[in-house]
Amino acid sequence: MTTGYALLHPGGKLEPWTFERRDLRPDDVRIRITHCGVCHSDLHAIEDASQLPLVPGHEFTGVVTEVGPAVTTFSAGDPVAVGNIVDSCGTCAACLDEEESYCRAFPTLTYGGVDRHDGTPRYGAYSDEMVVRDRFVYAMPEGLDPAGVAPLMCAGITVWQPLRRLRVGPGTRVGVVGLGGLGHLAVKFAKALGASVAVFTTSSTKRDLALALGADEVVLSTSPEDMASHGYAFDVIIDTASAAHDISPYALALDYDGTICMLGIPPKYEVDAMALLLGRRHVTSSGSGGVRDTREMLAFAAEHGITADVEVLPAHRIQEALDRLARNEARWRFVVNLTVDA
Amino acid sequence: MTTGYALLHPGGKLEPWTFERRDLRPDDVRIRITHCGVCHSDLHAIEDASQLPLVPGHEFTGVVTEVGPAVTTFSAGDPVAVGNIVDSCGTCAACLDEEESYCRAFPTLTYGGVDRHDGTPRYGAYSDEMVVRDRFVYAMPEGLDPAGVAPLMCAGITVWQPLRRLRVGPGTRVGVVGLGGLGHLAVKFAKALGASVAVFTTSSTKRDLALALGADEVVLSTSPEDMASHGYAFDVIIDTASAAHDISPYALALDYDGTICMLGIPPKYEVDAMALLLGRRHVTSSGSGGVRDTREMLAFAAEHGITADVEVLPAHRIQEALDRLARNEARWRFVVNLTVDA
Repeated sequence: MTTGYALLHPGGKLEPWTFERRDLRPDDVRIRITHCGVCHSDLHAIEDASQLPLVPGHEFTGVVTEVGPAVTTFSAGDPVAVGNIVDSCGTCAACLDEEESYCRAFPTLTYGGVDRHDGTPRYGAYSDEMVVRDRFVYAMPEGLDPAGVAPLMCAGITVWQPLRRLRVGPGTRVGVVGLGGLGHLAVKFAKALGASVAVFTTSSTKRDLALALGADEVVLSTSPEDMASHGYAFDVIIDTASAAHDISPYALALDYDGTICMLGIPPKYEVDAMALLLGRRHVTSSGSGGVRDTREMLAFAAEHGITADVEVLPAHRIQEALDRLARNEARWRFVVNLTVDA
Repeated sequence: MTTGYALLHPGGKLEPWTFERRDLRPDDVRIRITHCGVCHSDLHAIEDASQLPLVPGHEFTGVVTEVGPAVTTFSAGDPVAVGNIVDSCGTCAACLDEEESYCRAFPTLTYGGVDRHDGTPRYGAYSDEMVVRDRFVYAMPEGLDPAGVAPLMCAGITVWQPLRRLRVGPGTRVGVVGLGGLGHLAVKFAKALGASVAVFTTSSTKRDLALALGADEVVLSTSPEDMASHGYAFDVIIDTASAAHDISPYALALDYDGTICMLGIPPKYEVDAMALLLGRRHVTSSGSGGVRDTREMLAFAAEHGITADVEVLPAHRIQEALDRLARNEARWRFVVNLTVDA
């Protein structure tokens, strides 16, 4: 039996719930989960309550306890990490390119939806055990704290992927909108890639926090003067704000041919037409990343000693973590420890 | 004295108006205008009425009558064409790159605003004479009808620029939204560049017209079935629809990493966040083009015999052309002839 924290009724709180993980298939890995990050999308899933029971959690670390007979890359005792994708068709152009987040048959997500082989519901990593196809299990980078690695597997790869795709490196001027789980990792990765980084914030109280993360500059987005003095000032803006907002002021802060990448996923984006036209600017988005990029991100994190800044709570306080996340109190990611009080 | 057609009072009709063009500066060219295209942005300018008198018109052809002492590339009698930019700072990075539409000091437009040297108001090409700095005058491509060339200078370059920037060529799958002045030229240029081209239309009555322009296919955008069967089907979509519309359905028709380029300039764009995320798609825009791209476009048009499909009216019927354009009756561009009844 596996013990997890589940939403059992719409509008309810997460509560302990026991269930069974599947028996191992030949290419499966069984993992005792130690840490799981608390992602904003977990709040959305709980609000939607579209598939109950709902066990959220999709960025986690743990230790291998058992492997299927075809698994050659892991064995019991290995420390590992897993993100929000646990399977894919494996045969489409995207999968062959190790871009499984764009699997043409849609990837199997860590929770929500069903297993693509046996049709059973997928339960997430707010639980003490998980079974995952080996292809989507990653060796834990040596020397990094497992609690701080867990958020790399969703928040981290989600910002890493566009930073790399948009060729952020030495000399690139990067702006980050929204300082939270994604935003604080965008600052760390962009700085380590050699870029200069500004954080846009609505509150001057976050100034010192942003500078402490390594940002070169803080722009107060509520100040028309501060925004006007940053027109055409950025090559790339990573927008992680999850509330609906007009992105036109940020578009105007992009230089010619600059790109704003929307990662916060409000339902709709709205942008002033002339803001795009005048600077021939671009709006894009990105959805986590595949196996190749995730491996690259973890290697880079290990090389540069990058983990998420986390506040770790015992698993039975998961509802508290969710409530505080909803109040924007994370500094910068809540992680639950599944090995205590579970 | 120059005779033009001007809006003299907000909410009024265009009426004959006489005024003076400036004396030639050393690098100026005086042009007797023969044809001027009627652009949707002329309707917007008339509605705005922000600077009166307003003489619209910014895509025209004509014949040189006089040149300033420093002009070496043109002489009296040369057939020429001019677009919506007639001057720029000449010293910024964009101007040095012949991308004058992105001049950091903002280009001088053919009408609206003021001359950047003497501060006099700019009056457009619904008139029988124009004075333009030589750098922004283009030799008329040989063998093309001047009436059909005039719309190339705004509608044409506006679609040409993104088609080239987005590397449209053999094998590219291009969709065109909105069949009008811009849209019909997008079809012609994309086909001549070697792409396969589909036209999205809200009305099945435009099907035969689209195919006659060279489109390979017509997609009825009001048909959910037709749209659904074209998911992930295009590399590039050129959206020329000028009315506000949700671009999400077109975004969903883009393949992975595809781009929709918005040229119709409704005030705001709205797009579903997941439509961008799932395919890692891009939204961009574009503003006409600079000297380098315009020369390239004219050479390509001459080589492939491409001009706009026009309905030519005598200049005194300019108000009729505007009214019919507002009713979406252009097939595909109205052009006024300034040499008759002027």
